[in-house]
Amino acid sequence: MSYFDAASAAPLHPVARQALQASLDEGWADPARLYREGRRARLLLDAAREATADAVGCRPDELTFTTSGTRAVHSGIAGALAGRRRVGGHLIVSAVEHSSVLHSAERHEVSGGTTTRIPVDRTGRVSPSSYAEALRADTALACLQSANHEVGTEQPVAEVAQVCRGAGVPLLVDAAQSLGWGRVEGDWSLLTASAHKWGGPSGVGLLVVRKGVRFAPQGPSDERESGRSPGFENIPAVVAAAASLRAVRAEAEQEAVRLRELTERIRVRVPGLVPDVEVVGDPVGRLPGIVTFSCLYVDGETLLHELDRVGFSVSSGSSCTSSTLTPSHVLRAMGVLSEGNVRVSLPPGTPEEDVERFLAALPGTVAAVREKLGAPTSAVREAAVPVDSLVVDALGRRCPIPVIELAKVIGDVPVGGTVRVLADDEAARLDIPAWCEMRGQEYVGEEPADHGSAYVVRRLS
Amino acid sequence: MSYFDAASAAPLHPVARQALQASLDEGWADPARLYREGRRARLLLDAAREATADAVGCRPDELTFTTSGTRAVHSGIAGALAGRRRVGGHLIVSAVEHSSVLHSAERHEVSGGTTTRIPVDRTGRVSPSSYAEALRADTALACLQSANHEVGTEQPVAEVAQVCRGAGVPLLVDAAQSLGWGRVEGDWSLLTASAHKWGGPSGVGLLVVRKGVRFAPQGPSDERESGRSPGFENIPAVVAAAASLRAVRAEAEQEAVRLRELTERIRVRVPGLVPDVEVVGDPVGRLPGIVTFSCLYVDGETLLHELDRVGFSVSSGSSCTSSTLTPSHVLRAMGVLSEGNVRVSLPPGTPEEDVERFLAALPGTVAAVREKLGAPTSAVREAAVPVDSLVVDALGRRCPIPVIELAKVIGDVPVGGTVRVLADDEAARLDIPAWCEMRGQEYVGEEPADHGSAYVVRRLS
Repeated sequence: MSYFDAASAAPLHPVARQALQASLDEGWADPARLYREGRRARLLLDAAREATADAVGCRPDELTFTTSGTRAVHSGIAGALAGRRRVGGHLIVSAVEHSSVLHSAERHEVSGGTTTRIPVDRTGRVSPSSYAEALRADTALACLQSANHEVGTEQPVAEVAQVCRGAGVPLLVDAAQSLGWGRVEGDWSLLTASAHKWGGPSGVGLLVVRKGVRFAPQGPSDERESGRSPGFENIPAVVAAAASLRAVRAEAEQEAVRLRELTERIRVRVPGLVPDVEVVGDPVGRLPGIVTFSCLYVDGETLLHELDRVGFSVSSGSSCTSSTLTPSHVLRAMGVLSEGNVRVSLPPGTPEEDVERFLAALPGTVAAVREKLGAPTSAVREAAVPVDSLVVDALGRRCPIPVIELAKVIGDVPVGGTVRVLADDEAARLDIPAWCEMRGQEYVGEEPADHGSAYVVRRLS
Repeated sequence: MSYFDAASAAPLHPVARQALQASLDEGWADPARLYREGRRARLLLDAAREATADAVGCRPDELTFTTSGTRAVHSGIAGALAGRRRVGGHLIVSAVEHSSVLHSAERHEVSGGTTTRIPVDRTGRVSPSSYAEALRADTALACLQSANHEVGTEQPVAEVAQVCRGAGVPLLVDAAQSLGWGRVEGDWSLLTASAHKWGGPSGVGLLVVRKGVRFAPQGPSDERESGRSPGFENIPAVVAAAASLRAVRAEAEQEAVRLRELTERIRVRVPGLVPDVEVVGDPVGRLPGIVTFSCLYVDGETLLHELDRVGFSVSSGSSCTSSTLTPSHVLRAMGVLSEGNVRVSLPPGTPEEDVERFLAALPGTVAAVREKLGAPTSAVREAAVPVDSLVVDALGRRCPIPVIELAKVIGDVPVGGTVRVLADDEAARLDIPAWCEMRGQEYVGEEPADHGSAYVVRRLS
């Protein structure tokens, strides 16, 4: 049993568990009350705020405990936009933000605001100049994650913060994936985070609003947490979150080196162990514990089930997982293969042996899934009687079938000939071009078809 | 050390603690994930939802776990109002709702909606006919608490629900204070509650939306909890909340009888033990564990401090406590004395001896506070040379000083003579009429004055 999905949620840190249990007795009362139970709760809350502010690198009175990272993002964006309503209604986000940021942007548009989505390169990184170009006189807020949650790529936060500062626009940094590893450098204005990503308990997020940033909390008023997070304070959880942040920070430097080496093994060895794999995300400027790759001709959901069966818990940005029928917006924005996508995110303390076991189990698991799906082997199978042009009808078929069908027939056209794949699965738009790039074929383009689209591919080799 | 503020927050129930600790190991992962840790978390969440729905008396798919009772109220009211936006923008609330309801109403008004606040009688109860009269063609939602959090008075929820149902208007019931004691009867449409009121952990609220009720969640979208409560699920806390609800319910019938007898002792004996006391709230139709009284000539904050010093943790709706300078809106709506207000709310399991100790300690504590403030004794002191009319300048003086000054000079005017008290403290508006009623004097009325108001009192005896 190896849990490799720390980017979703990390198991509770032993220090967090201890702190939680201790503060269940001391921290359950209302900290606004004057009696001793209330004063005791207040002391715990104040101490947790100071410790957390120290880890973040902010003043205690700039830090609000929210009930989740998602709530921190929702409240942070809504409050910052409202605080600068007079400046205008323009919002800037990167295309690879967490869904909580993107959903906030959608909400903002529903209320009449406008949003610019900053594209990323093939590694998933934005460029500071894209932010500079997007800034307008009516820009109220810009948002950028510290590092990407799906591929681990670190963003140039300090540079983007400087660009925004120059334009007088506050930058909100979603530090959910990185805060356990260290402070976010640069002159940012707002910051959000989530305790269960660093081994804290569920139910705690952070919202930091620097002094001087205009901020108008939305929703019904509530006197708690500076009016920025309504509801009774969850002090035992907040104390545990603070304690675990301090604990993971103490181990961060050493553990970062160790995990980086382990994920590097996966990055380097998987393409040799499994044919037709694309490792995605920046190979260098990345979080220590995350590595992501996609496997051609593989259905993500089946792969996840098979990996679970052999003892590995990972996640996937493939379209055919969970309840979603579209590939992850991150992979889409990067323009990389989404088929058979696997994100491995190692919790601190992951033993080396577990990674070696994973590398040993992966090739057989992928091969079994491919065989079940009737995936082609790597070599192009030459047809006896080639025809210049072929149409593959994959309408109604889900990822990875359209790509598998394409691969099966590419040898039936001569070099220079074309295959038109009819498909209505969202993933085909991403995966057919990605397949072409990986297999050295030419992606001609997409054309509207009766149902769905026709994706045109020219055989080059 | 006796903690008598269960209406604010109850200490964690032993069963909740056990369940929390057990589910920290099983419930930390993302329940949306397909691997075993995720499936295990999902099973726990589903089981907690079923158990809680059973306790509430609703279907599991009608129940959403929120991060607090306050959040449940905010989301419930906003979603129900938005769901019936086409009907109109009229909201009905009682004047004695929890601040989360009243703040939601204020927010609704800021967005252009209208609110009718239903008055209460001197016991704090609304009448169903007031709701019937307030219902309009454009009424989108009505709200009523199951029982009042400050004085314990139970509301006629089933009757009001029937009235609302007849008009096709959904009723939201804030059951925060009563759900641990039993289901809310009647044909309500939405219900909210808070786990830490029944011995569950902080960080869990309930929002129930009956099937068929139009509901449009507000804010950025999020797929969790039927789209009604954004953010990562706090499963260990939810499991603990469900377990403690079941546990307190199992003891509820017996414990209700016991606590009712203990609070009845306080109701009956305090007026005999302490002069110039008004016990407020309904003597019969009330929650088992809450009893509230107000003491003339006493500063609430000092009284709380003194009671804390001798080992009792209680709360107060007086104006001169905590950071607020206005008396509790509940006491104000009831038109009762707010001066020296004390709410005793007994947690289940409170030993009889603790209540007896409280009754033994109270008279001396109140007397000491009164002496410190120079409060008059009960008897009217006759002046040697009475004058027909007197003015007392209490401008800039806070509760309970204006009332103390009035009591000191009432004997200086003859029967039939008047005293004008100049005061700018909010509490005077409530406490001077209440004093008149308690002391058998006539409250003539309030007149505008240069600063603040002049409260005119005629001596009758």
